[in-house]
Amino acid sequence: MNPIIKKPLAIIVGAGEGLGKSLAILLASSGYQVVVLNRSMVAYDVENISMMQIDASNAQAVENKILEIIDNYSVPHVLIHNPAQLFIKPFLETTVEEFELAWRSMVLSAFNVFQAVLPGMTKQGKGTILVTGATGSLRGGSHFSAFASAKFGLRGLTQSVAREYQKQGIHIAHIILDGILDTPSSRKLHSLKPSDMMFTDEVAEAYLQLIQQKPSAWTHELDLRPTNETF
Amino acid sequence: MNPIIKKPLAIIVGAGEGLGKSLAILLASSGYQVVVLNRSMVAYDVENISMMQIDASNAQAVENKILEIIDNYSVPHVLIHNPAQLFIKPFLETTVEEFELAWRSMVLSAFNVFQAVLPGMTKQGKGTILVTGATGSLRGGSHFSAFASAKFGLRGLTQSVAREYQKQGIHIAHIILDGILDTPSSRKLHSLKPSDMMFTDEVAEAYLQLIQQKPSAWTHELDLRPTNETF
Amino acid sequence: MNPIIKKPLAIIVGAGEGLGKSLAILLASSGYQVVVLNRSMVAYDVENISMMQIDASNAQAVENKILEIIDNYSVPHVLIHNPAQLFIKPFLETTVEEFELAWRSMVLSAFNVFQAVLPGMTKQGKGTILVTGATGSLRGGSHFSAFASAKFGLRGLTQSVAREYQKQGIHIAHIILDGILDTPSSRKLHSLKPSDMMFTDEVAEAYLQLIQQKPSAWTHELDLRPTNETF
Amino acid sequence: MNPIIKKPLAIIVGAGEGLGKSLAILLASSGYQVVVLNRSMVAYDVENISMMQIDASNAQAVENKILEIIDNYSVPHVLIHNPAQLFIKPFLETTVEEFELAWRSMVLSAFNVFQAVLPGMTKQGKGTILVTGATGSLRGGSHFSAFASAKFGLRGLTQSVAREYQKQGIHIAHIILDGILDTPSSRKLHSLKPSDMMFTDEVAEAYLQLIQQKPSAWTHELDLRPTNETF
Repeated sequence: MNPIIKKPLAIIVGAGEGLGKSLAILLASSGYQVVVLNRSMVAYDVENISMMQIDASNAQAVENKILEIIDNYSVPHVLIHNPAQLFIKPFLETTVEEFELAWRSMVLSAFNVFQAVLPGMTKQGKGTILVTGATGSLRGGSHFSAFASAKFGLRGLTQSVAREYQKQGIHIAHIILDGILDTPSSRKLHSLKPSDMMFTDEVAEAYLQLIQQKPSAWTHELDLRPTNETF
Repeated sequence: MNPIIKKPLAIIVGAGEGLGKSLAILLASSGYQVVVLNRSMVAYDVENISMMQIDASNAQAVENKILEIIDNYSVPHVLIHNPAQLFIKPFLETTVEEFELAWRSMVLSAFNVFQAVLPGMTKQGKGTILVTGATGSLRGGSHFSAFASAKFGLRGLTQSVAREYQKQGIHIAHIILDGILDTPSSRKLHSLKPSDMMFTDEVAEAYLQLIQQKPSAWTHELDLRPTNETF
Repeated sequence: MNPIIKKPLAIIVGAGEGLGKSLAILLASSGYQVVVLNRSMVAYDVENISMMQIDASNAQAVENKILEIIDNYSVPHVLIHNPAQLFIKPFLETTVEEFELAWRSMVLSAFNVFQAVLPGMTKQGKGTILVTGATGSLRGGSHFSAFASAKFGLRGLTQSVAREYQKQGIHIAHIILDGILDTPSSRKLHSLKPSDMMFTDEVAEAYLQLIQQKPSAWTHELDLRPTNETF
Repeated sequence: MNPIIKKPLAIIVGAGEGLGKSLAILLASSGYQVVVLNRSMVAYDVENISMMQIDASNAQAVENKILEIIDNYSVPHVLIHNPAQLFIKPFLETTVEEFELAWRSMVLSAFNVFQAVLPGMTKQGKGTILVTGATGSLRGGSHFSAFASAKFGLRGLTQSVAREYQKQGIHIAHIILDGILDTPSSRKLHSLKPSDMMFTDEVAEAYLQLIQQKPSAWTHELDLRPTNETF
């Protein structure tokens, strides 16, 4: 790599086969060096994408890993928080362990990575943090107690941090995915026509649009849904 | 007490000197046997109010205590979830311990007490659960990351459970307190005129109104604020 | 009437056979002198309820009528705005006349009656204004363009006026009826079980509760729905 | 111009010196033939932009004009609804004429242009309609009764039509401008630093991003605000 002209760095937290992968590939092809952090190891075999395994709900591990990444690359220009942990079950069948796991994987992990990247982003006076929300971020549906509580909590955290950091030039946006992503696992779970699902490559483009917004016209929240989704 | 005509039971979780105390006294004077669960011991010395110490974020302790209460009294007609754990500080000064404490004391505690009372309430086909929210339930303000994230999470949990249980005759409502409660501690913290604060006895009356609503016209969310509060 | 101890006055705008009638009867039985203003003449034949015919979307007619009422009785303590004008049809089949009628009957009428009563209420330093909203106040559903646009507009107006007048002691609240009222006409239109509908007498009780709230704990918006309503 | 390969048509309703002009120029430079409809005549003198004068609150005039435009050009691919009519004054100083004017210019005009373009857009199976909202679309602030009521009503209308037409391939989005646009008139009205305002060219880019979204990931509502705007 040319030591003078470094690629800007994008970190994606939570990236399995679906949206995270599409985001990594789109950002890599748009000029970013991409580092993907995931609970389990996945391999994309795409240039300019590195993969690291981490439990993002562990604050110390996150801090160490991000410091290591900053050392090896640079302060990130983009952070995307995208872990998902879905439970759909009656409230009384939801265990306290599941309820806590949803929170740790989707909310505490965001707290940890936000704390790890914001000092550097603030020092460099810019940065974009994008957070993946869901229908359950706005509406606690029946049988979604663990998921909706966590996604609400993630939205509250994101709003608070967005309001604190926008004046320091950090753009923090919350994206509400109101639909089923077309992924290998969702194809097994649902029997939806492709036209009823969200294509992860097209969703990723909307994330890229947010990264490209100018500071005088920043979006802090938007929804995304497929044509056939009732809402 | 007449062994045949028992008073209906109200359990209040989180009751120090402020709203919890007003709720306990109002419900006791309105014909309820009241049991107050609190992290630290407080004594009201009012007839028909019992006090028990408990860490509501401990699921097993909550289950045991609620079973004991049901044994000693009856299945509760009313449950009020009212613990507060406020942190106001810059995001980077908020520790992971504080962030987790806010969630455990305000969200996990609700999960635990909801799970403990709902089987009995469902069996008796009625019950009212009231949950204390705040401005931070709807809006993550700057410097409120821990509090807002937890209050958002509590609202998502409450909505989900409300939607699942309303058809079984359980009324679950979320009350947004958009103002400063007039309590001994808030009087020290703020220098507000009394007319700018919410009197806990008057707020308690609004909770009682919700308990008295008929099933064809249940409120699931309302705001409460003092005359002088901008919103 | 005893010239010294006058009953407080409540004006209800929009009162046919349903909620308006229940409100009139409940307020009359709760100590109010009630004046009902309606587009068409209806007769309740209940003591302490007077009926007057008016087109509330006519500003001059409203002003004259309210001044006449204030002369004959007193400045109202309570104003309830309750006209309904429902259209459910595809957007392209909605005529511009229907779209305008929905706005005139539900929004412009509110503007007119608010302007007519607020000077007197402000002078006496108290008063309650209650406004009937609907599911369509929060969500513009397919085929509800005229109704939802008007109900949204009514909510925006109500919020603005509530924020301006609360500091002058006027309590202005917006009630979201999220369900089908059990009225003679809705029984014909829908084939719902009574347990799926809202009983107008029980809804009216919730309005009375709002009137009775103390100034340190005022509700500015709440929802009401029957047990069986999904939301 | 090649008579076979026609430029796609964009119609902008409400375009004076500010955002409307930026939108017209950006769309013209992005390959669109642009027709601007405005109450008063303005001249941009830019290639591929035509200007027509119209009172958009007149349904018949709108229908005739749109039919004429479709005849001369084609069914529009893009419609942007952007008229503004701001009143900021105490409620009792707001005249019924002003209240009605706000509604006619911002809500009724939208109803009229939506009705005029949707038959053609539906027939061609695609189209994008973008609607300019404001802070007042979500919050009725004190002294904004006419503006907020109209902007709420516009949002309700837009939502209803979006829900009805998305399945027919029409993308309808509502953009909440939460900040002061940097225009000649706002520079006179406010004494804001440029960094506290929204640059209309940058806002226009966000509109273009919405037009470019793919049908599996459509945004129906987003906010835009400058870095320094508290929210």
